[in-house]
Amino acid sequence: MRKVERFMRDKNLEVGDYVRIIEKENGNTSVYEGIVMNPYELSSGETLTLKLDNGYNIGILVDQIVSVEIIEKVAPREELKFEEVFPKKPGLPSVAIIGTGGTIASRIDYKTGAVHAAFTAEELAKAVPEIFDIANITPKLLFNIMSEDMRPEYWIRIAHEVARMLNNGEDGVVIAHGTDTMAYTASALSFMLRDLGKPVILVGSQRSSDRPSSDAAMNLICSVRMATADFGEVAIVMHGETGDTYCLAHRGTKARKMHTSRRDAFRSINDIPLARIWPDGRIEFLRKDYRKRTESEVWVDDEMEERVALVKAFPGIQPEVIDFFVDRGYKGLVIEGTGLGHVPTYLIESIRRATEEGIAVCMTSQCLYGRVNLNVYSTGRRLLKAGVIPCEDMLPETAYVKLMWVLGHTDDPREVREMMLTNYAGEITPYTRFDTFLR
Amino acid sequence: MRKVERFMRDKNLEVGDYVRIIEKENGNTSVYEGIVMNPYELSSGETLTLKLDNGYNIGILVDQIVSVEIIEKVAPREELKFEEVFPKKPGLPSVAIIGTGGTIASRIDYKTGAVHAAFTAEELAKAVPEIFDIANITPKLLFNIMSEDMRPEYWIRIAHEVARMLNNGEDGVVIAHGTDTMAYTASALSFMLRDLGKPVILVGSQRSSDRPSSDAAMNLICSVRMATADFGEVAIVMHGETGDTYCLAHRGTKARKMHTSRRDAFRSINDIPLARIWPDGRIEFLRKDYRKRTESEVWVDDEMEERVALVKAFPGIQPEVIDFFVDRGYKGLVIEGTGLGHVPTYLIESIRRATEEGIAVCMTSQCLYGRVNLNVYSTGRRLLKAGVIPCEDMLPETAYVKLMWVLGHTDDPREVREMMLTNYAGEITPYTRFDTFLR
Repeated sequence: MRKVERFMRDKNLEVGDYVRIIEKENGNTSVYEGIVMNPYELSSGETLTLKLDNGYNIGILVDQIVSVEIIEKVAPREELKFEEVFPKKPGLPSVAIIGTGGTIASRIDYKTGAVHAAFTAEELAKAVPEIFDIANITPKLLFNIMSEDMRPEYWIRIAHEVARMLNNGEDGVVIAHGTDTMAYTASALSFMLRDLGKPVILVGSQRSSDRPSSDAAMNLICSVRMATADFGEVAIVMHGETGDTYCLAHRGTKARKMHTSRRDAFRSINDIPLARIWPDGRIEFLRKDYRKRTESEVWVDDEMEERVALVKAFPGIQPEVIDFFVDRGYKGLVIEGTGLGHVPTYLIESIRRATEEGIAVCMTSQCLYGRVNLNVYSTGRRLLKAGVIPCEDMLPETAYVKLMWVLGHTDDPREVREMMLTNYAGEITPYTRFDTFLR
Repeated sequence: MRKVERFMRDKNLEVGDYVRIIEKENGNTSVYEGIVMNPYELSSGETLTLKLDNGYNIGILVDQIVSVEIIEKVAPREELKFEEVFPKKPGLPSVAIIGTGGTIASRIDYKTGAVHAAFTAEELAKAVPEIFDIANITPKLLFNIMSEDMRPEYWIRIAHEVARMLNNGEDGVVIAHGTDTMAYTASALSFMLRDLGKPVILVGSQRSSDRPSSDAAMNLICSVRMATADFGEVAIVMHGETGDTYCLAHRGTKARKMHTSRRDAFRSINDIPLARIWPDGRIEFLRKDYRKRTESEVWVDDEMEERVALVKAFPGIQPEVIDFFVDRGYKGLVIEGTGLGHVPTYLIESIRRATEEGIAVCMTSQCLYGRVNLNVYSTGRRLLKAGVIPCEDMLPETAYVKLMWVLGHTDDPREVREMMLTNYAGEITPYTRFDTFLR
């Protein structure tokens, strides 16, 4: 039993209880009132999570709790079997919804306050009943972590769950995910899910439901629509503009969260979106070069090398930063260079040392838009000679995830280079379209 | 005498000679043909610079040169005094043009091939004669370095040269600068030039003149126009769209290079541009909240703490990365967090240790657009409690430069926080305008 479960047992706390908690951290005292949430399997087990009255979740370290007062005990829950409430409708496609956490999950469970309830039938129906007219829904809460705590081991768990569901007959999968790192996860799934022939849709929300402008419902509806489409790739589905008119599907390797709070924060970078999706079911594909639905069996290629880092170059950066990663035994570095892919020239010797020690060093651009080109200026040519791999028009975040995946398969420098420059999941566009800048 | 001057003397090389050079680097042999350029004062002195036939410059380490063949000696240059060629025209304002290097400088000196000639009267006139009808031009080549090699000591030199010129009667200053790190330099000048009452305009070009699409001439014309305007701030003037119609002036602290190669790569982030400038002289100010021209004497506040780093957060980043900067005695860190300003929660302890040791830790967002808000989610609140300074809607790059400048003035944590959240040069917008996203 972990610390949080022991704490709950000792204090006689049940999931759903409404409590007042006093926390002391570094001399600061904070008081929180809210509903006790289910401690999740994959958390550290040291944190009690409360759903506050404003709808947000907060984690409180058990060690810092100085008092607990139960204001209201949770009412005994009536257990309804999912299939009893939503019997399968003949003729509808099957879509699995995998919960991983984030604002969209907290939206759905807002009314009970307990995250474990997010995907019970009642809650899902109450929140977004429209989806049950689109597909027979199989909900599965895989884990509940904040988006910023996502890391490779979770990507791998999601990938295996997706594969299991698709190979078990689901027509598509929707993954509810926090928006902070959704694009990183989408990239990881794009590389790990091989022979994918069905839609794998990541969806989130930028505003939780205590705000009138919540985007959770429409995003979920559109993502279920996309999960039933004639499409076989990983995509992110989020608001296409600030109004509730349509969503856009972005290829998993080309999407980026470009705004901290806007509903239409997600954008395709250096590429046009895959499709426009209206909540009423219309789907307009905006391009022809996408994979359609196939009957192939998907498998998970989950070899990932985690000793990889993403490093931004800036005026004044010291060679010791590069040296640090070399000395610590990192296997790969993705640099966000300036402009066409440059770094201060006094860094080149450290980079050469890195590649000579077998570390893969890849170059992207902090401009985000456009393509790196190390052949134009002398600094670029010197970087090429030092063994740097120019990552075309890949996003820095995508190149980072891809390098982890590539290094999971080989550490031969020639093979690493070849794989990094092979287009596995649309991460490299062969030429830059003029109409993709700041769209 | 430095290595390169000794080498040129030994080989009987003169600036302007057309030569063939064979270089050997790590077993690779390269042959270059081009015009010998002037070795600049601030370079390492170990590199011979050639202007290649395609117009680009390349630096070759003297130690790696295995043979030099002079194909054509430079013609003796006729020395004309600048004032003889361009006598001051009565009634015109005075504008100084400071050369620092970059593509725009190489554009202007393209015909002779020698960078030292970039700002002789003849060359400037041949390249962009229109500017002499706008203002009496005083050219000054301060140094010639690639944009990616810019660093704080150069920012300080530029600032002092600008102040000297403005206080000596120039009505405005134009700084020709490489585009890679132009926005960092613009931020630095915005903070260092105090009581500024005249225009300080940074200008560059994305395409050198061997391409038909060069933007150098129009950018230079518009920047000289802006340097004569009723305006008293630091701004970047670059193409406003891909055609040769108008330029935009962006506030120095809010500009960012958003594309590796487009002419309209520079954008105002979280803010609207200051003005639209047509080459014919029309200037349309797009807002009212800018400083107008005043008679104040500008002074340079150049205290900068260089032990500051910009660190991007990503899924899988290890606490050792934060610890490294603490252990190496860095004084400040600017983190590019995810979303509203988050990092993996397992990083918070390292961040707390950093702030407890007196290191300023500032939070920005890798979304770039929008504003950090550490009050919404529990991770944000924990970061606040750990002493992190939320940098509002400042760009990560601007926050990095500002933190160097702030830490040059105080290391008292309360004062650092207060200064970081004080709006010195338009770097913080009080509220986010809806119409500034991806424009």
